[in-house]
Amino acid sequence: MAIETPEGYAAFDEASLIEHLAGDAVLRGRLGGAPASWKVSEVGDGNLNLVFIVEGPSGDVCVKQALPYVRLVGEGWPLPLERAFFEYRATTLHSEHVPGRMPEILHYDPRLYAIVMERLSPHVIMRRGMIDGIVYEKFADHVTDYLAATLFHTSDLFMKAADKKAAVATFCGNTELCKITEDLIFTDPYVISSNNRWTSPQLDEDARAVREDTELKRAVARLKHQFLCKSEALLHGDMHTGSIMITPDDTRIIDPEFAFFGPIAFDVGKLIGNLLLAFFSQSGHEKVAGERDDYRAWILRTVEEVWNGFERKFVALWTSRGEGDAWPAAFFEGEDGRRSLELAQRAFMRALFEDALGFAGCSMIRRTLGLAHNIDMEWIEDPDRRAACERQNLAMAKELIKQAAGFADIAAVTARARG
Amino acid sequence: MAIETPEGYAAFDEASLIEHLAGDAVLRGRLGGAPASWKVSEVGDGNLNLVFIVEGPSGDVCVKQALPYVRLVGEGWPLPLERAFFEYRATTLHSEHVPGRMPEILHYDPRLYAIVMERLSPHVIMRRGMIDGIVYEKFADHVTDYLAATLFHTSDLFMKAADKKAAVATFCGNTELCKITEDLIFTDPYVISSNNRWTSPQLDEDARAVREDTELKRAVARLKHQFLCKSEALLHGDMHTGSIMITPDDTRIIDPEFAFFGPIAFDVGKLIGNLLLAFFSQSGHEKVAGERDDYRAWILRTVEEVWNGFERKFVALWTSRGEGDAWPAAFFEGEDGRRSLELAQRAFMRALFEDALGFAGCSMIRRTLGLAHNIDMEWIEDPDRRAACERQNLAMAKELIKQAAGFADIAAVTARARG
Repeated sequence: MAIETPEGYAAFDEASLIEHLAGDAVLRGRLGGAPASWKVSEVGDGNLNLVFIVEGPSGDVCVKQALPYVRLVGEGWPLPLERAFFEYRATTLHSEHVPGRMPEILHYDPRLYAIVMERLSPHVIMRRGMIDGIVYEKFADHVTDYLAATLFHTSDLFMKAADKKAAVATFCGNTELCKITEDLIFTDPYVISSNNRWTSPQLDEDARAVREDTELKRAVARLKHQFLCKSEALLHGDMHTGSIMITPDDTRIIDPEFAFFGPIAFDVGKLIGNLLLAFFSQSGHEKVAGERDDYRAWILRTVEEVWNGFERKFVALWTSRGEGDAWPAAFFEGEDGRRSLELAQRAFMRALFEDALGFAGCSMIRRTLGLAHNIDMEWIEDPDRRAACERQNLAMAKELIKQAAGFADIAAVTARARG
Repeated sequence: MAIETPEGYAAFDEASLIEHLAGDAVLRGRLGGAPASWKVSEVGDGNLNLVFIVEGPSGDVCVKQALPYVRLVGEGWPLPLERAFFEYRATTLHSEHVPGRMPEILHYDPRLYAIVMERLSPHVIMRRGMIDGIVYEKFADHVTDYLAATLFHTSDLFMKAADKKAAVATFCGNTELCKITEDLIFTDPYVISSNNRWTSPQLDEDARAVREDTELKRAVARLKHQFLCKSEALLHGDMHTGSIMITPDDTRIIDPEFAFFGPIAFDVGKLIGNLLLAFFSQSGHEKVAGERDDYRAWILRTVEEVWNGFERKFVALWTSRGEGDAWPAAFFEGEDGRRSLELAQRAFMRALFEDALGFAGCSMIRRTLGLAHNIDMEWIEDPDRRAACERQNLAMAKELIKQAAGFADIAAVTARARG
């Protein structure tokens, strides 16, 4: 039985998409020429949506449209169309604070749940670039601009409470997407679930050990509770290397359809976890042992720069633009006040660091034992080699979750990864 | 200039109130007789609203109506009428989980922002009873039933995330009332503000010391940030002895118009703070030194029973009804799981305890140096005696906020109060 959709909604085909774009003077001008001459390609390789590239004689656009179900699974797993609205809203709100780090939105249609945005070219999904061993020297600087600016400016450190509560209320509506994270990241990998899969039989014992690790599950449950009730800032919500389109010179953050007000550490930690997972996958992509040593070193340097850059930029914004209702600026005036604020910031960032390591670990485990895996590992064809990489990844993840307090700083984390 | 109000709203006078009640068959039946024979008394001694008692030959009701401004101040301080809706919603949601501890709501009128509820009689406001030195032996048991049940059942420990997020979104609308707390409790007493007042000149130096205490302000700012973004459970929001109507046999919690999703420790801590403030006020009400020793001992016993009873009942609910999305029950199965859950609960309750002490301290300071004082202290006529009580109260409050981690348990808190 087909899923019922609101009046006015229909999934695009080539003809209806062209008609839709041609109906908007700005978009028609951007593409140029006769609409019949436009070239449409469906390129969605993600799990959830339709994604089209439309090319005209003068220019091109990218169109992302929500389907009323999970594309990867089909109509058996319905998913609200409204996620397109939340992606549009989050992109708009985030872009206010960090110009040029997300795709420019050209048009949003609330009846079709379709976003028309700039086509990013020659950008590639960062995860693929990393599998190919490409170094992105500017990435850490770019992504920490994004993280620090968006997470600071949507928090109580910058916002007035009334504005923030209104925004929180809006994003409370994105509950089904949050539920996917709650289940797939924070619950399923730790219990027997038909959603789980792993490299079997190689990791059968490892998966069992995770399910039976009471200390680990207790720590994960604490993080899940934070995810459910710490409305600290407007998160991207799915901050991994598959949500980044990149060239050596440019970095764009895409796909914030999981956006909601949650713990700041989740966005930062998820990114660090995905970088560490990429690190542990590298040996599986080597044709000659050691040929990726330099690349591995770059990944760990990037992990350090992501945390250190985020921390430095976030604290700098707090110091210079701390105009929100939390941590009233009037409490921190004068020299004494400045020192007091530094102490507060240090304690705040330390707690954020430990939570980020925990969330990093959760991301690494879910990609090894849960439903959705990453191609970083999946593209290692030999299951024994893959399992060896995944086992290292799991061991590190468990330490990050259970012993976060034991890592003095991010250098201690990368030292542990280096082994 | 009069404040604009929505169509259909008008503040009650005697005639319009009788007409309103007579228009509802159930209410007319409850009051009995001819509406013209009903006796109306306006009894609002609070700061914000109109409150009427209406008596008929067969029964009586209490009617609470929001005014579009703060009654105490007048039209110069507008306040949204919607607070009546939030009180109505919070009472309804809380009462589901703890029958008989709040007034029964008989009718809510969304156009008049008026709640008709049972009249509580012979109940008195608990604060007045405590000034008179009346012991309420059942209070601690009753109020911890209320706190544990309402805070547990509206948290992620019991609720499913989608239901909770919908409720969070609703109460995000109560932002103006939250702002009163943010300003009056967490900000004004720590800065120079025309809102502040204190027993002067006796406490001038004490007030200055608070404003210059950078460690204190840092700790208060941390608590304020929690108040702004920790959406843990649906709080009463104004949980002090003036929000409790009581007899030796019955306890009712009234006036949850400040309700919102916030940190559990705020409700618990605010109550403990108000009890401690009542404790420090007692010597000011003695005609003969020491005549209230027994009463003081009862108050401290009550402080202990409030924390211990809350903790015991909250944890028991968590263990037996932990059906929410946080702390998944599936993580804590079997004997190992049971022990793991106990460890989790112990850590959770310890953090909650320390935060509650901090919130208690904030409540004690705001009632001494901020805008709204309590009659516990205000009714001590001799300013030197009053200032002596208030100074003890301030000293304890600062310790609770700055050294919460140093109190091993609630007995250590009451021992410190005892001096």
